[in-house]
Amino acid sequence: MRRFVLLAHKAPVVPDFTLNDLPGSAGRIDVLCRAIGAAFFLSHDLRRDVEVDILLQDQVQIRLVGERLKRLNPDERSTAALIKHALEKLGEEEAQSTPGIFVSRRTLPEMLDRLYQLGAHPIVLHEDGAPIEATSIPNDPAFFLSDHQDFSPSDEEVLADLPRISLGETPLHTSQCITIVHYLLDRQQEDEGDLVLCHKVWGEPKAQLIKGLLADFNIPVNMVTQVPASILPMTVDGLSEVRLMVRPRDLARAREIIADYFEEPSAE
Amino acid sequence: MRRFVLLAHKAPVVPDFTLNDLPGSAGRIDVLCRAIGAAFFLSHDLRRDVEVDILLQDQVQIRLVGERLKRLNPDERSTAALIKHALEKLGEEEAQSTPGIFVSRRTLPEMLDRLYQLGAHPIVLHEDGAPIEATSIPNDPAFFLSDHQDFSPSDEEVLADLPRISLGETPLHTSQCITIVHYLLDRQQEDEGDLVLCHKVWGEPKAQLIKGLLADFNIPVNMVTQVPASILPMTVDGLSEVRLMVRPRDLARAREIIADYFEEPSAE
Repeated sequence: MRRFVLLAHKAPVVPDFTLNDLPGSAGRIDVLCRAIGAAFFLSHDLRRDVEVDILLQDQVQIRLVGERLKRLNPDERSTAALIKHALEKLGEEEAQSTPGIFVSRRTLPEMLDRLYQLGAHPIVLHEDGAPIEATSIPNDPAFFLSDHQDFSPSDEEVLADLPRISLGETPLHTSQCITIVHYLLDRQQEDEGDLVLCHKVWGEPKAQLIKGLLADFNIPVNMVTQVPASILPMTVDGLSEVRLMVRPRDLARAREIIADYFEEPSAE
Repeated sequence: MRRFVLLAHKAPVVPDFTLNDLPGSAGRIDVLCRAIGAAFFLSHDLRRDVEVDILLQDQVQIRLVGERLKRLNPDERSTAALIKHALEKLGEEEAQSTPGIFVSRRTLPEMLDRLYQLGAHPIVLHEDGAPIEATSIPNDPAFFLSDHQDFSPSDEEVLADLPRISLGETPLHTSQCITIVHYLLDRQQEDEGDLVLCHKVWGEPKAQLIKGLLADFNIPVNMVTQVPASILPMTVDGLSEVRLMVRPRDLARAREIIADYFEEPSAE
């Protein structure tokens, strides 16, 4: 599950705002609405393995749970209406205002405690962090983001010991950061799929040559040596069969490159 | 300059819609508003080197020119108001409705002609395209995207000969695609900056060892050999000074890795 925790500093904790002025009297609720959209929406689909936890003014938590979420639409106004409705249901206990949306009184340390209890791994997205390529994102990450303002001094105090990662030098909107995190994690998941056979050659020197060529095109290759079942206890001249394995998304291009530079790649 | 060309199939060509129902009676203008936001907004700033060309129902073109753009705000409603105002100014000649927003009657082939005349390089973003990592994006790209619907058969006919690239297997919203394209091009530009000195060693074998280690951490290294000015016409034992150069964004991590595995990296 991917979690995004949004700390909102100006958005109201009472439902007295108009949907016709989200950036103004509604305290930049439009920022939160776009972030919610970026977290959940795929083309004509919802990401069900996502939770968005919004903290309003360090007082009120609104949780959106992808698994159970209904009535969420991509436009800002209808999302703001769901938030407004949630605030109307705010009481002593956590309440479900519409399917998949839960509202309660919480503070940042309480939110963080809950995440730790659930086994989530809190990570702060911040331009001063380590580059995201340098970081291995754990399972069940919970990314903390601020709204249009920086984290407040009291936020910073609570978040001080968490790992920080950065998405690069360009300062972005909250929703854009969420889109990019999803993109990078999606690509990572695609890459974790099984490698596929791209080509078979005899002898490691040739395999190394092809591996080096493909590396020049940013295609990583795993070499798997198949020792042939023979009467000899060892291979002769290192001439065992080597299978060149690539990521599924690189297969077509890798085969084209091998065909251009060497030979028609062998099928299985 | 980066251009995004949005083909909108349902959005109205007359300004008779209400700002209170962008997804409904306004024909999913909310999709266009989010795409415009993704194209132009940075955190508290605008990308000035961007142009967004919207084609409404293959009849009306609205161009937003980053260099001259004023009054654009991140929320959907105010952006929709700018589009509505542009449609009110639609006449025989191209008119500027608000600073940086131009409206005219155009068809898709006419838009494409204009882009070619400007020296732009049209590219279709489509899930069937070649993976974006496999493609070298030319200068002055013009990315064609559809709205919430697929390209129409007549769009497809006009766009048939253009290169197509894909952002991966996950089907995304138009605005999300734009955010990711910006992200990838931003990273590419950062990488094109000057490499910086990470470490100096004596002798190429050791340099190769460190280069291989850093490659395991996805850090590319350029080795620059400094032949020392000496009385000998050649270096002895290949022991010339080798400078290991990395991308600025990899510097801190590369130095950490070298310190962990080898030695404290030498400063300039």
